[in-house]
Amino acid sequence: MVASERQSGADRQRREEELVRAVLAAFERTPDVRLRELLASLVRHLHAVVRETRLTEQEWAAAIEFLTETGQISDAHRQEFVLLSDVLGISMQTVAVNDTAGPAATEATVLGPFFVAGAPRLERGADIAMGAQGEPCWVEGSVSDTAGRACAGALLDVWECDEDGLYDVQRDGAAMAARATLEADPEGRFWFWALTPVPYPIPDDGPVGRLLRATSRSPMRAPHLHFRVSAPGARTLVTHIFVEGERLRRDGDAVFGVRESLVRVFERQAPGTPTPDGRQLPAERSWTRVRFDIVLEATGDLRPAR
Amino acid sequence: MVASERQSGADRQRREEELVRAVLAAFERTPDVRLRELLASLVRHLHAVVRETRLTEQEWAAAIEFLTETGQISDAHRQEFVLLSDVLGISMQTVAVNDTAGPAATEATVLGPFFVAGAPRLERGADIAMGAQGEPCWVEGSVSDTAGRACAGALLDVWECDEDGLYDVQRDGAAMAARATLEADPEGRFWFWALTPVPYPIPDDGPVGRLLRATSRSPMRAPHLHFRVSAPGARTLVTHIFVEGERLRRDGDAVFGVRESLVRVFERQAPGTPTPDGRQLPAERSWTRVRFDIVLEATGDLRPAR
Repeated sequence: MVASERQSGADRQRREEELVRAVLAAFERTPDVRLRELLASLVRHLHAVVRETRLTEQEWAAAIEFLTETGQISDAHRQEFVLLSDVLGISMQTVAVNDTAGPAATEATVLGPFFVAGAPRLERGADIAMGAQGEPCWVEGSVSDTAGRACAGALLDVWECDEDGLYDVQRDGAAMAARATLEADPEGRFWFWALTPVPYPIPDDGPVGRLLRATSRSPMRAPHLHFRVSAPGARTLVTHIFVEGERLRRDGDAVFGVRESLVRVFERQAPGTPTPDGRQLPAERSWTRVRFDIVLEATGDLRPAR
Repeated sequence: MVASERQSGADRQRREEELVRAVLAAFERTPDVRLRELLASLVRHLHAVVRETRLTEQEWAAAIEFLTETGQISDAHRQEFVLLSDVLGISMQTVAVNDTAGPAATEATVLGPFFVAGAPRLERGADIAMGAQGEPCWVEGSVSDTAGRACAGALLDVWECDEDGLYDVQRDGAAMAARATLEADPEGRFWFWALTPVPYPIPDDGPVGRLLRATSRSPMRAPHLHFRVSAPGARTLVTHIFVEGERLRRDGDAVFGVRESLVRVFERQAPGTPTPDGRQLPAERSWTRVRFDIVLEATGDLRPAR
């Protein structure tokens, strides 16, 4: 029966390929060319997953159930599909393919689910913690663009978790804290107080948490401080700085956001060390300091004449 | 700047590939070998979609929103992720890769969302409509296996929609109708009354319906009668028979379930034509008849000695 089984195998392969062609053909009349392109790619690759893994019907049913639960646990405060995209590296890959600024510009990384538009506008030098607890961290740096121009008045959104690993929006009814919008000075410089970033787990009490446990993966994010930086004539940058140190390397980052070029030394200062702006900290309180010089991609239209 | 742009392009490609490798590496410690294999395939192909389409961040966000809504509209009576899988041909591809019975056996097709376990057990010759409206259809056939043996006492589940295109479970609080379990006779033969299948739309008032409209696709299923057939010593078969005719070819089938080998002529009989079992139909009522001879894959253990 070997010849007949072979024939049957070839027949099966032909039927599987015909099915892929039929699905692609069904989407051929999509008026929006880009939507058609996206669906064609998705169809080809999803069918390839089913065919190369010889997905069983039980596995298919388990996948349907997982996706359904991922949708149903999502609400105004929780986005489990973003988490799923994050832990599969899809969010970071999307950032990567859109980060076309070239090596001269600062690298981008994921926005994450905790950005809030309309954060309090603070003066340079202010403490963005606004009551959030943690080790103080002096942050200073500059914003320029790839044309070599200082970005006067660049706007910086910065946000981070507190020492418990929680963002303000994760605490029921809490006021905005550990987030702010700041403006760079005419030379593109900025400085402010924040909190030394700490590692924290992504929400892991839902289907994505189950996936991480089933795959022996850590839910921890590498400690980081978020930035979103915009200036006229430059492409808006969404990025983090990461804390150089052991935890970064040992635990990795559940969402694959770490770029070597974004790792910074947060220099720890012994209690009592004078602060750059004369701020008085409690006597027993250590603090850290970090510098981040940001280079935005200059866009053609506003590039200065040379 | 051409050389530098090229370098930047190569650098970007390297970063994108490194990210795929990092995600695969993160899943390397998955204890369950099969789960690791499935995730590796999924990760490779999803990243390929993002990379080859150069997915934008807005498109990514739209996809997240679509998937979330697909989960949230699903409930005990509606499974929108199954519909999504169906219209992408993923359900049918899963059936195809698991349909290893070879060309001698009857082909499988999708189970669909309307199968109900524990349908009423009816005698051969009964009318499964049980009150559901439509044109009567006489169905007869046989069940045998690929070893050439008649499947005495094979169990057949059969189900279909009524003339309005609705299954019983789609009508609030309705009793079971147009579905039954029947037993084949000692020679593997079966016969019963049903309804001539009609085309119907899959539920299209949710995100999957929007997808079909955005892609100029029809939500219609080709008219069909569902079968699930099991017998000792044979692999259970889930399939349909489709109605030969114009609608099949013109509208296609929203879930890609049609197999040429499953298309049958439903012979229409003029009102007044005597029925096979002497059943008296209303004088003005036409009816149809169809034959379906089913061949199950014999499993090794119970194959008769030759």
